[in-house]
Amino acid sequence: MNGTVVRNIHRAEAATIAILERLGVATVHEAQGRTGLMQPYMRPVWRGARVAGSAVTALCHPGDNWMIHVACEMLKPGDVLVVACSSDNTDGGFGELLATSVKARGARGVILDMGCRDAADISAMKFPAWSRAISAKGTVKASLGWVNLPVVCAGVGVRPGDVVVADDDGVAVVPRLDAVKVAKAGEEREKKEAANRACLQTGALGLDLYDMRKSLADKGLKYIDGPLD
Amino acid sequence: MNGTVVRNIHRAEAATIAILERLGVATVHEAQGRTGLMQPYMRPVWRGARVAGSAVTALCHPGDNWMIHVACEMLKPGDVLVVACSSDNTDGGFGELLATSVKARGARGVILDMGCRDAADISAMKFPAWSRAISAKGTVKASLGWVNLPVVCAGVGVRPGDVVVADDDGVAVVPRLDAVKVAKAGEEREKKEAANRACLQTGALGLDLYDMRKSLADKGLKYIDGPLD
Amino acid sequence: MNGTVVRNIHRAEAATIAILERLGVATVHEAQGRTGLMQPYMRPVWRGARVAGSAVTALCHPGDNWMIHVACEMLKPGDVLVVACSSDNTDGGFGELLATSVKARGARGVILDMGCRDAADISAMKFPAWSRAISAKGTVKASLGWVNLPVVCAGVGVRPGDVVVADDDGVAVVPRLDAVKVAKAGEEREKKEAANRACLQTGALGLDLYDMRKSLADKGLKYIDGPLD
Amino acid sequence: MNGTVVRNIHRAEAATIAILERLGVATVHEAQGRTGLMQPYMRPVWRGARVAGSAVTALCHPGDNWMIHVACEMLKPGDVLVVACSSDNTDGGFGELLATSVKARGARGVILDMGCRDAADISAMKFPAWSRAISAKGTVKASLGWVNLPVVCAGVGVRPGDVVVADDDGVAVVPRLDAVKVAKAGEEREKKEAANRACLQTGALGLDLYDMRKSLADKGLKYIDGPLD
Amino acid sequence: MNGTVVRNIHRAEAATIAILERLGVATVHEAQGRTGLMQPYMRPVWRGARVAGSAVTALCHPGDNWMIHVACEMLKPGDVLVVACSSDNTDGGFGELLATSVKARGARGVILDMGCRDAADISAMKFPAWSRAISAKGTVKASLGWVNLPVVCAGVGVRPGDVVVADDDGVAVVPRLDAVKVAKAGEEREKKEAANRACLQTGALGLDLYDMRKSLADKGLKYIDGPLD
Amino acid sequence: MNGTVVRNIHRAEAATIAILERLGVATVHEAQGRTGLMQPYMRPVWRGARVAGSAVTALCHPGDNWMIHVACEMLKPGDVLVVACSSDNTDGGFGELLATSVKARGARGVILDMGCRDAADISAMKFPAWSRAISAKGTVKASLGWVNLPVVCAGVGVRPGDVVVADDDGVAVVPRLDAVKVAKAGEEREKKEAANRACLQTGALGLDLYDMRKSLADKGLKYIDGPLD
Repeated sequence: MNGTVVRNIHRAEAATIAILERLGVATVHEAQGRTGLMQPYMRPVWRGARVAGSAVTALCHPGDNWMIHVACEMLKPGDVLVVACSSDNTDGGFGELLATSVKARGARGVILDMGCRDAADISAMKFPAWSRAISAKGTVKASLGWVNLPVVCAGVGVRPGDVVVADDDGVAVVPRLDAVKVAKAGEEREKKEAANRACLQTGALGLDLYDMRKSLADKGLKYIDGPLD
Repeated sequence: MNGTVVRNIHRAEAATIAILERLGVATVHEAQGRTGLMQPYMRPVWRGARVAGSAVTALCHPGDNWMIHVACEMLKPGDVLVVACSSDNTDGGFGELLATSVKARGARGVILDMGCRDAADISAMKFPAWSRAISAKGTVKASLGWVNLPVVCAGVGVRPGDVVVADDDGVAVVPRLDAVKVAKAGEEREKKEAANRACLQTGALGLDLYDMRKSLADKGLKYIDGPLD
Repeated sequence: MNGTVVRNIHRAEAATIAILERLGVATVHEAQGRTGLMQPYMRPVWRGARVAGSAVTALCHPGDNWMIHVACEMLKPGDVLVVACSSDNTDGGFGELLATSVKARGARGVILDMGCRDAADISAMKFPAWSRAISAKGTVKASLGWVNLPVVCAGVGVRPGDVVVADDDGVAVVPRLDAVKVAKAGEEREKKEAANRACLQTGALGLDLYDMRKSLADKGLKYIDGPLD
Repeated sequence: MNGTVVRNIHRAEAATIAILERLGVATVHEAQGRTGLMQPYMRPVWRGARVAGSAVTALCHPGDNWMIHVACEMLKPGDVLVVACSSDNTDGGFGELLATSVKARGARGVILDMGCRDAADISAMKFPAWSRAISAKGTVKASLGWVNLPVVCAGVGVRPGDVVVADDDGVAVVPRLDAVKVAKAGEEREKKEAANRACLQTGALGLDLYDMRKSLADKGLKYIDGPLD
Repeated sequence: MNGTVVRNIHRAEAATIAILERLGVATVHEAQGRTGLMQPYMRPVWRGARVAGSAVTALCHPGDNWMIHVACEMLKPGDVLVVACSSDNTDGGFGELLATSVKARGARGVILDMGCRDAADISAMKFPAWSRAISAKGTVKASLGWVNLPVVCAGVGVRPGDVVVADDDGVAVVPRLDAVKVAKAGEEREKKEAANRACLQTGALGLDLYDMRKSLADKGLKYIDGPLD
Repeated sequence: MNGTVVRNIHRAEAATIAILERLGVATVHEAQGRTGLMQPYMRPVWRGARVAGSAVTALCHPGDNWMIHVACEMLKPGDVLVVACSSDNTDGGFGELLATSVKARGARGVILDMGCRDAADISAMKFPAWSRAISAKGTVKASLGWVNLPVVCAGVGVRPGDVVVADDDGVAVVPRLDAVKVAKAGEEREKKEAANRACLQTGALGLDLYDMRKSLADKGLKYIDGPLD
């Protein structure tokens, strides 16, 4: 598939994406059955951002960011650029000039399974970026990869148009066709958690709130008075 | 020992714990002969916290946070919850709801040899948490571990009631019965360091302040004028 | 070479160093042909510093910071202390007292291929420090290494007097005799980037700005309309 | 998708699989455009095996091997069992008893993005197994994953029925519908390599054999006589 | 505790140790409730050894093997030397001369949470050794640690006289007072596994042998006929 | 320096190289004051080889092996090819065809700070190769690096013509001008070790052989009778 760019992709509804963004990574990941979470080495370049958007996908090769330039043309306002790499590498294929460009095209953020450079500038711009490393190492423009075909990014399969959600907890991917269902499940989870939070704030125990005592006893949990020493 | 919970533990004196907290991780670790420091992969979820407290210990299994719920009931105000895991795993077994609960029970902080989720919320709450990773990966409640029995957390043996000290430098553990002695040694170190600091601020050299020139020469250190190139 | 200290070294011109500092790690690294960048595990102890200075080099052994004390005497105002280690180790060989001393001697910053302790204090002092880890682990003063001889630090060869540039992106090293040439090349790059930035901010594509379309087509890049699913 | 098992899958032709097995991982991976290679942490439990087969896929959770038992029933002679894990974990979810079972069902080998135990026995049985670690750590049977739905294993997307090729170089995955095409391309590559090998054995240079001198010169490669020191 | 050597320790019965050795790491680890397994980075220097013995413990500091020499004097025939390190380090603190010495004193093997050198010689001697790395890096003899006091080695607490079992799967530790009980439980497990093995060799499924179908269905496992693509 | 090839280099005497080869990595590394050892991630592709030779150096870029082809032409019988990479990457830039070529040119072995592919073939050929990973990942020929200029390989500075020694313990580098001196020091060490070995085989203790008891006591080592539990 090296050397292929797909111009048009399906995208999820903006309203659905907005809900997923508000819910955040942890809730979205739970709401879809604990799937779709990128590996925890994906960290925000600066703390405090939260975004969701439709994935425009690019596959690059180690030490080469050519396909990011190709992918820029495919970005529409609200998209999130997802850059995979064909092998483990931390070179800084994305920096402040690309951030400027991607932002000017209306993208919400970028997910990089490679290094990010110009960390201070990108933080000052408040442009949301997640990467596996911060590195100034320069890259070349020599190898064709692909754009808007499926990629595996930080351990998760991403198809173009899937919804990407990213915040301080990392990055989660929701398959486009599941987005409505996941958003609904996430909102229900949100409500339930609000009730639980209120209860826990009073000092109630999760053991009682989630009714765990019987199943713990069934498994054989035993209490000893102690102290033992 | 899987499946055992000890209700009561001995704790160190509050006054001793307060001294250890003020001293911080580096001084406490030195004061007890450079022992008791957790591995440096244990990092604060947010920078700037410093806490000390009596350890309530829990052993969980990978991808499973059930014993954290069991441990919550054993927490008393001022305690620090120490969660070990039976094998290397970074799943997010502790998040904002558990932080709410643990805080409501009066705990000072939490030490997680696993992942922590809801990093933004926990930072906003200013609840002190140290973990080996930040990850939204959900966990199950399926396997019994134990509570308030000894654990190995991030390379250090922790017994219930040991004093845990944590700050931006990481996490140190003081055996309960050594706490008074370590606090005293730490305070002496603190005084000596204050004097040394004042001296170094004037531009004095450690070589002279710590009287190293002779031992360096004895070992064979030689000075060449240079430059060599 | 263990046991040797060179007192005098050549240094680059202050004016050149000032230019390299302003340019920062990413630009400097590019301007010298993508060489001289330390491995990305070297991270700032606190975010936001940028320094450049002449390298005073020290080789320590794992768990031993003796040579840092010896190196302090060789520091002149404006220098950057570069500490290599003879094997991988993260013990905290540099802390607030050494930072106080090094600062009092006029050093601009410190680069540690080992751990750094007292992270909170060093951040509060705003003393620029980069390290491979934050760790309170104490060190001994037992083994001779060397000062102001060549070292390999985080994968890069550093000779005394080379210019070290460090910021949030990491650490780059410019050989002393190349410093003027690299500063000039960096300033040209800086100008070109300013023009490109202005252009990209209007939404122009890198594909056109950098004239990539033909070479991409020559390599065989093909566009498909899509969507494919 | 947790909790779903698909009984029947499409498989590639045995003749095609046999060719891919003979070609081995490196040739197959090249023949499909340098895609489909699992991360290099996937290593053989013993050196010297080479297998190819149709993937029966399973998703497990960390510390839990329940779905391997479920997947066993879906194995047909010639298959390769591919076990993914929903987060990074090295627990030993596969050992000699499972190897005995999987072998009795006719499977050719197993690919484990988790740990493998009983390494000595599995080596003595000569049962081909690749894993991310060797670990005796026991696992539980508590969480549902899935069988014969797509997984991401060691960074590569695998669909049931894809052809898995594994040898001392690691593990490669060929999408089922590409298998014939890749086998053909691989055989052509094999022939060309045989000719090149014969040529290189005489001492001929790759520079000439692959006609690289002009493109190197075009890029600016320059020769200096030396020696420089 | 730095600077303390305990001359005499309790040891488990030779007969019990012999049983644990025969059972091997995986069975022993399971037989004591899945506890006591060192981290999987502990690997044999050469494949094929299996030993068990009473732990003589030593704590060294990074890059320093002095305490190994002190520990040698405490070894009795049948012991296993367990060397912990006060921080992560891979320097080669144990080589062929120490192996010669330790073997001459009757030790069965050595467990090193540091590097091992002279890998070829130690393999040729068939002296059983497990380590976190192979490295020729030399060490010094400068810092006191301790001998025959508790240590944490590769994530597991080890007290002197505990039984250490090591084979190709890694290293497990059985608390001395539990050794008889664990040996018995392991032998029962061994018998049950022999029966299960015979059954699985006929092609029977673990699903039936271990009676899992009902609990899987209760959890919600569903079968679909497929194929899906 | 990208784009430069130096044709001629100085080499050490064959007789000196032969001594260094016989001594092996651990002895050579010690004989030059514990310097010059590559990081322990450099492992032999197959166990049992030991070689020494003059370094022909090449710098490649991640995922690119072009400069290896250029370097082949510079190899003379007895040389060892040392391949550095400008950033961390494990792609398989060296395989059986290059091994065939390099062997046909008379090279003794290859040191790769990247991945090696065709591990089974290279093992069968008995061609000595050390690498940071085994990986079939293909590489491109797109970027100029350099040949026979200094490189940093796996943490060690290597100049062309330096003597490289490699065996199961890893890889050590001896600066060319130090080779005679290091060979002599190594031979003395070898003799001393032979005497010590004979002594230790009788059960003598290193404590007495190396006369450590007094310095241990001076540092404060204390013996307790025990047992303590």
